[in-house]
Amino acid sequence: MLKYGSPAPFRLESGIELPDFEIAYHTYGTLNENRDNVVWVCHALTANSDVADWWPHTVVEGGFLDPNRWFVVCANIIGSHYGTTGPLSINRATNEPYYNDFPAFTIRDMAKAHALLADALGICRIHALIGSSVGGFQAIEWAVEEPERFERLVLIATAAKASPWSIAIDETQRMAIFADSSYGQHDASAGAAGLAAARAIGLLTYRGTDGYNLTQQDAANGGMLPPDSHRACTYQRHQGDKLVKRFNAYSYVKILDAFDTHDAGRGRGGLAAALERIKAPTMVVGISTDIIFTPTEMLSLAAMIPHASYCEIESSFGHDGFLVEHEQLNRILKNFI
Amino acid sequence: MLKYGSPAPFRLESGIELPDFEIAYHTYGTLNENRDNVVWVCHALTANSDVADWWPHTVVEGGFLDPNRWFVVCANIIGSHYGTTGPLSINRATNEPYYNDFPAFTIRDMAKAHALLADALGICRIHALIGSSVGGFQAIEWAVEEPERFERLVLIATAAKASPWSIAIDETQRMAIFADSSYGQHDASAGAAGLAAARAIGLLTYRGTDGYNLTQQDAANGGMLPPDSHRACTYQRHQGDKLVKRFNAYSYVKILDAFDTHDAGRGRGGLAAALERIKAPTMVVGISTDIIFTPTEMLSLAAMIPHASYCEIESSFGHDGFLVEHEQLNRILKNFI
Repeated sequence: MLKYGSPAPFRLESGIELPDFEIAYHTYGTLNENRDNVVWVCHALTANSDVADWWPHTVVEGGFLDPNRWFVVCANIIGSHYGTTGPLSINRATNEPYYNDFPAFTIRDMAKAHALLADALGICRIHALIGSSVGGFQAIEWAVEEPERFERLVLIATAAKASPWSIAIDETQRMAIFADSSYGQHDASAGAAGLAAARAIGLLTYRGTDGYNLTQQDAANGGMLPPDSHRACTYQRHQGDKLVKRFNAYSYVKILDAFDTHDAGRGRGGLAAALERIKAPTMVVGISTDIIFTPTEMLSLAAMIPHASYCEIESSFGHDGFLVEHEQLNRILKNFI
Repeated sequence: MLKYGSPAPFRLESGIELPDFEIAYHTYGTLNENRDNVVWVCHALTANSDVADWWPHTVVEGGFLDPNRWFVVCANIIGSHYGTTGPLSINRATNEPYYNDFPAFTIRDMAKAHALLADALGICRIHALIGSSVGGFQAIEWAVEEPERFERLVLIATAAKASPWSIAIDETQRMAIFADSSYGQHDASAGAAGLAAARAIGLLTYRGTDGYNLTQQDAANGGMLPPDSHRACTYQRHQGDKLVKRFNAYSYVKILDAFDTHDAGRGRGGLAAALERIKAPTMVVGISTDIIFTPTEMLSLAAMIPHASYCEIESSFGHDGFLVEHEQLNRILKNFI
C-alpha cells in the first residue's frame, strides 16, 4: 500500500476542510512512457485499494486488469478503514480519532480525491475507468465531472442515483448499528454487534434468494435443528464477525450516508443532462439476479449514457456476481478495454 | 376477541408442557346448523386473530371471507403478543412473565393449538383452511396432520419448509435484536431499538425493489438531502417504531425461531411423502414479485400437493402483495372456496 499526503487541506462538497489529508492506494504493473496505459479501479463499500485481493482472477496475466499490460491504480475511498483519511484518523481539534465527528462526505468527494491522486501521480488521461457497485457511483461522478480524462468507462452493477430501495437498505443497516448502544463510545470497536447485524443485512441484499438456497442448505438430518444452528444462521453470523474484525462501525455509517447522497444529476440540471456529458465509450454490465441494481435499472442507465453498450452477466449470486463471475467479466471486458 | 382456556396443560412438540394455556381468537359470521360453513384463517408473523383488521376488504359482503355466508375463525398463534400464551404470560415458576424463558415452540405446535380450539368449538370439518406466509406454514402442517378435516386448502405466498434464504433473513433480524443490549432485561419493552431494526429488515424482504421504488421516491428538490431524511429512511424508521408500539421483542424472536423449524417433512419421511397426505383440493397462490417465497418455489409446492392448482397475483408489492391485492385474491378465491 502506498500513501499520498496532500499538501493542502481537502475541501469537501459541504465546504468543510480536512487537514492532513491522506490517500492510500495500490498500483500494479508499470506506467508506460506515453502514460497511456492506466486502468483506474474504484472500489465498493468495505473494500480497499488492494484490487488483487478483493477481486480475484482479475489482476493476473490474461485478466482484464493484466499488470503486464496495464498500470492499474486503485485508491481507498474517503472515510474508509483502509488508510485514506476517515473516522479513525486523528482530529486536530481533539487530538483523538474523529469517530462520529468525522464530517459527512459525498460520492462526489470520493471522485474529487481520485482526481487529486491522479494529478499527483502525473496521470492526465486514463485509458479505462472501472467501477462496480459504490465504485460505479464514483466512476460515474468522475466521468461526468472530467469527461475528457477517460478513453473508456466500465460501470458494473451500479447506478447514477441511489434508489429509494437502496437507501432503505442503508437506513436499515444504520438502524441495526444505532440499536447497539456501544455505538458512539470513543473506541474503534464501538457498535461491533450492530455492525455485524448491518453486514448480515447487506449480505442478504448482495446474495438474494438463489445465492442462499444454492449454497446454504442444511445437511439432511431428518430431525429438528436447534434455533440458530442452521447453516444459513451460522453463515450470517460468521460474515458479520468477519467484517467486525476488519472494519469499524463509524466508517461504515459514514460511507452509507455518502451512498445515500449519490445523485449524479444534483446541481447539473438532472440525471439526463449530467450523463449526457460522458464522452467515453461506456460498457454497462448488469447481473441477472442482482436485486440492488436490477437488470432493468442497468438498462435504463445504459440508455442515458451517449456511447454505451449493455451486457448482462448470468449468475445465481445476485449483486455479488461481480466478485464471483470473473470469467464472464473477463470475456466482456478484455475486448472492450 | 374471545379466549379459550385449555383445561389441560398444552404439550409442545419438545415435550415441555405449558400450564394455563389460553388461545385468543376471533370469529365472524354464524356457524350454520350443519356446521359446514367454517373458513379457518391462519395469520402470519406479527398479525393477530382480528382478520378483518389486518386483511382489509376480505371479511366483507362479497369478499372471499363474507361473514354473511361463512363462519370465519382465526386464532392467535402461540408465543404471539395478542392474547395466546406467550413470553409475556406469567410463568408459574417465577410469578413474572416468561420473557426469554418461554420455551421454544414450532409451527407444528401452532397447528396443534388450532386443532385444540376447533375441537373445543365443536368444529369437526372445516370447509376451507387459508394461510398466507407463516399462516401458510400452519395451514400445511394442519392439513398434513389431519387431512380428513378439510374440504379446501388455500396456500398463499408460503412454503412447506423454511428455505436457507428465509432462515438467513430471520437470523439477521435476531442479530439486530441481540445487538440491542437491553434485550434480556425483564421488561416488555426490552430490545425495542433492535426490534425496530428487525422489523425494518423484514420490511425490505416483504416489499423488495419495486415496492420501494414505486412508493418511496423523494420529492424532487435539486439539492442534497441530509443523511437519514430521505423518504425511504423515514419510512423504515416509522415502520420500526410502529411495530415496537404494538409488539414485543421476546415474542418476535421466539416466533422467528419457530419459523426456522418449519419442515412439513420432518419425521414423516420427507416433504414429498408428507404433502402426499393432503386430501383437500388446494389452491396455491404465488406473487409475481415475492422475493421470500418466489413464484418458482410456489410452483414447486403446488407440484408436490396431489390436487393442487396454481395461480399468480401480479403485484409490485412483493410478499406484501397478499395484503394489498385483495381484488385479485377475491377473484381467485371466491370461486375456489
